[in-house]
Amino acid sequence: MTTVDLNVDLAESFGRWTLGDDAALLRIVSSANVACGFHAGDPGVIRQACVEAAKQGVAVGAQVGYRDLAGFGRRFIDMPAGELTDEVIYQIGALAGFARIAGTEVRYVKPHGALYNAIVRHREQAGAVVEAVRQYDPRLAVLGLPDSVWLRLAEDAGLRGFREAFADRAYTPEGTLVSRREPGAVLTDPELIARRCVRIASGEPIAAIDGSPITVRADSICVHGDSPGAPAIAAAVREALLAAGVRLGAFAGSDR
Amino acid sequence: MTTVDLNVDLAESFGRWTLGDDAALLRIVSSANVACGFHAGDPGVIRQACVEAAKQGVAVGAQVGYRDLAGFGRRFIDMPAGELTDEVIYQIGALAGFARIAGTEVRYVKPHGALYNAIVRHREQAGAVVEAVRQYDPRLAVLGLPDSVWLRLAEDAGLRGFREAFADRAYTPEGTLVSRREPGAVLTDPELIARRCVRIASGEPIAAIDGSPITVRADSICVHGDSPGAPAIAAAVREALLAAGVRLGAFAGSDR
Amino acid sequence: MTTVDLNVDLAESFGRWTLGDDAALLRIVSSANVACGFHAGDPGVIRQACVEAAKQGVAVGAQVGYRDLAGFGRRFIDMPAGELTDEVIYQIGALAGFARIAGTEVRYVKPHGALYNAIVRHREQAGAVVEAVRQYDPRLAVLGLPDSVWLRLAEDAGLRGFREAFADRAYTPEGTLVSRREPGAVLTDPELIARRCVRIASGEPIAAIDGSPITVRADSICVHGDSPGAPAIAAAVREALLAAGVRLGAFAGSDR
Amino acid sequence: MTTVDLNVDLAESFGRWTLGDDAALLRIVSSANVACGFHAGDPGVIRQACVEAAKQGVAVGAQVGYRDLAGFGRRFIDMPAGELTDEVIYQIGALAGFARIAGTEVRYVKPHGALYNAIVRHREQAGAVVEAVRQYDPRLAVLGLPDSVWLRLAEDAGLRGFREAFADRAYTPEGTLVSRREPGAVLTDPELIARRCVRIASGEPIAAIDGSPITVRADSICVHGDSPGAPAIAAAVREALLAAGVRLGAFAGSDR
Repeated sequence: MTTVDLNVDLAESFGRWTLGDDAALLRIVSSANVACGFHAGDPGVIRQACVEAAKQGVAVGAQVGYRDLAGFGRRFIDMPAGELTDEVIYQIGALAGFARIAGTEVRYVKPHGALYNAIVRHREQAGAVVEAVRQYDPRLAVLGLPDSVWLRLAEDAGLRGFREAFADRAYTPEGTLVSRREPGAVLTDPELIARRCVRIASGEPIAAIDGSPITVRADSICVHGDSPGAPAIAAAVREALLAAGVRLGAFAGSDR
Repeated sequence: MTTVDLNVDLAESFGRWTLGDDAALLRIVSSANVACGFHAGDPGVIRQACVEAAKQGVAVGAQVGYRDLAGFGRRFIDMPAGELTDEVIYQIGALAGFARIAGTEVRYVKPHGALYNAIVRHREQAGAVVEAVRQYDPRLAVLGLPDSVWLRLAEDAGLRGFREAFADRAYTPEGTLVSRREPGAVLTDPELIARRCVRIASGEPIAAIDGSPITVRADSICVHGDSPGAPAIAAAVREALLAAGVRLGAFAGSDR
Repeated sequence: MTTVDLNVDLAESFGRWTLGDDAALLRIVSSANVACGFHAGDPGVIRQACVEAAKQGVAVGAQVGYRDLAGFGRRFIDMPAGELTDEVIYQIGALAGFARIAGTEVRYVKPHGALYNAIVRHREQAGAVVEAVRQYDPRLAVLGLPDSVWLRLAEDAGLRGFREAFADRAYTPEGTLVSRREPGAVLTDPELIARRCVRIASGEPIAAIDGSPITVRADSICVHGDSPGAPAIAAAVREALLAAGVRLGAFAGSDR
Repeated sequence: MTTVDLNVDLAESFGRWTLGDDAALLRIVSSANVACGFHAGDPGVIRQACVEAAKQGVAVGAQVGYRDLAGFGRRFIDMPAGELTDEVIYQIGALAGFARIAGTEVRYVKPHGALYNAIVRHREQAGAVVEAVRQYDPRLAVLGLPDSVWLRLAEDAGLRGFREAFADRAYTPEGTLVSRREPGAVLTDPELIARRCVRIASGEPIAAIDGSPITVRADSICVHGDSPGAPAIAAAVREALLAAGVRLGAFAGSDR
């Protein structure tokens, strides 16, 4: 029986500002990328996310990012590797305290936003995040884009790397993501997104943006959580997977 | 043989701004109250403090404070108990990550600045910090002012409470600290401060501000770290204690 | 012909986090309390609010608050008067730059959240905010609760003070606001709220929470902007006022 | 008679953290680049700097930077041009409030740290800062590196651009700064630095790092303020200039 993971970004609210429907999403996904307070997430929503994730048997991952609340972590910051390593360790540790209280633990690390994008190619920053994980706990899994420098360096350092696909993004014939600036880059039809996820999970090819077939291999499928229709799309994906006989399971293990 | 602890605030620098001579102080004290990033302390200096503390066999404690870099945690913030509990947990967790990497662990919690002062009497905030420690790890010790609501509630909750004296502060005949606004409240003569510490450690009375003898019982003596002469005073205290046959030892245990 | 002002809090979004429908509210009110970046409001939303306010002929006021993004300015901070004065000046100045670019100017100051509540009675902080306005520009108007220390000290200092009523809040028979913790403290029926506004604007008594008649004298009526139904309520108030022959006009003057 | 300007970074303290000796430096220089709170500078030190600058007849400039207290503005942030424009306007406005209170005004803009370095070549960010100045007040002068994109775009936009030289930095034979990573890049001998300044001010060639003569044309000479010996170096420069018959005068005009 085929198993796939669904991961989603969570705990992205901050103080008075609410973003995403964490409770709804945690009933759908198998892995929760919990923001750690540097680009989003205050201690209260982080705790809440950990408590709910533990209840639902959802794996908790550290969604680490640049220290940039004003930019939501979406702006590249050119910082020294040592500082980045320390900032990532700080964030994982902070999250780990809440995971512990919730009776679960941090199982993986998935960088957020501009950091995620940077370490696809930025060797120094990719190495800095790898170093943070390795120093903090080399048993943590890491999640990233296939063929990224981040995953390659992580595996070189002995970490367990996992690849993710994006449920709502178009792919080029070469298997990379179509830039958000291109027309058709972001899919919004829940049915279509769900069908693609079933094919990805089953190892079957999907249509690239030019219609040609490509096979996207992924340990986890990312669904987005911060758009208004996000829970509905995530639910459609989940139902389609289950209906197709695909089992949902956290790639990094879980309490369940 | 009498044993006493010397504790000092550390990791109070932030980015470009340096405060205190952490390396010098860590060669003198037995317990380090490491700032956790909310009122002071960036990930780099926190890490450095943990690594050096581990090397020197100094116990690491969490110097938790209000989220207030601009005010250095010295301004009371009237926040809900639940939020305060979560903010304290966040800080302990963040520090714990660096302690772990340094090969040591967080052994106690000592609130900082306005939070320290508030929970001498503020029942709700005192309870919130106690709750944070209890939830995070009830084996952590807590350090505070004798007769504070903070220590009483901590002990009621089953935590191990320890009392501290202040090396450079004058006491009233009733054994409370003379307000900093009063003349003579802060002592600056290293010799005098050192002699008082020896008496406190030995259970002998010291002179209150009016000259009357009072006996201050303390598990730990706080030396200050952020004034220019701080390391010299701390060194004088240490030497006087050793010369008097008092052993220095961390109240909360250490790797040594 | 009777004239009244409608004021609303604006520019309370921050980065990725959106709060309130500024564009809709600016087509309804006559005065905009623009957040200045310390408790809410990033430079982009502040600018946008100023530009739209100028277009609609809405008066721009400085919604100054404590430096507390995490608490949205809703937590009292016990800070020295001098620091508070400087923080308020900073905020007014920052807003004034955008008002200038938008072709308008800052016309009044209305403190936000916990600061608003504090200076109803806290003489030192009230005086600190008054001092900030006086130093920055004594021609600025100030808006506050009738009988507050804030308004009294402002008028003592030669500033023009204006009183506001709350459209969606119940009043005690003594004319003070019923605490939000009491049942019935917050009104949600747009029709009812609108009718009360017409009576307030016309100088007629409204029903206090116990049904007894009270007369609330106000230069401005505050409508809230950050609840989902806020624009609908504000629109109902505006229409009812206009239908009753009441003119809307900014208490502090405007470009119109 | 030859006139030159001496500029220095000021108001770079933040809360409990003190950096630089603002009072001493303001008795030496003719232009003060006052930090505006995004990378350094709290409202209190900004105010103090403005008040002292006004007293000493020193011109006040806006030292604008990235929103990055943790990195002191020394880390490049890849942000959209529109956001950068708004962040710069916010900073100039905030400073202008204090300048006004101090009885002076903001006369020029000098970007700080990573932003300064970025806009030597980064066309989009350079244009964003130019746009901020142009929108805020096109009469403001701007200060920067000769031949930078920043100065060129500023002049294209009709702003008055001024060029600065660095008193304590070695130059390549081509007239660019030697990278700080190279040996000999930073000069520390007050006498030598002072002599070079006199030559620069007089239009005479100085020795490049390879000993060859180069002529550095500058409207202003930057002295650094945040190293321990900074005031002594700045004083030596000032005395040498005066002794050589060079007059000190703010490039952007002043109250004097």
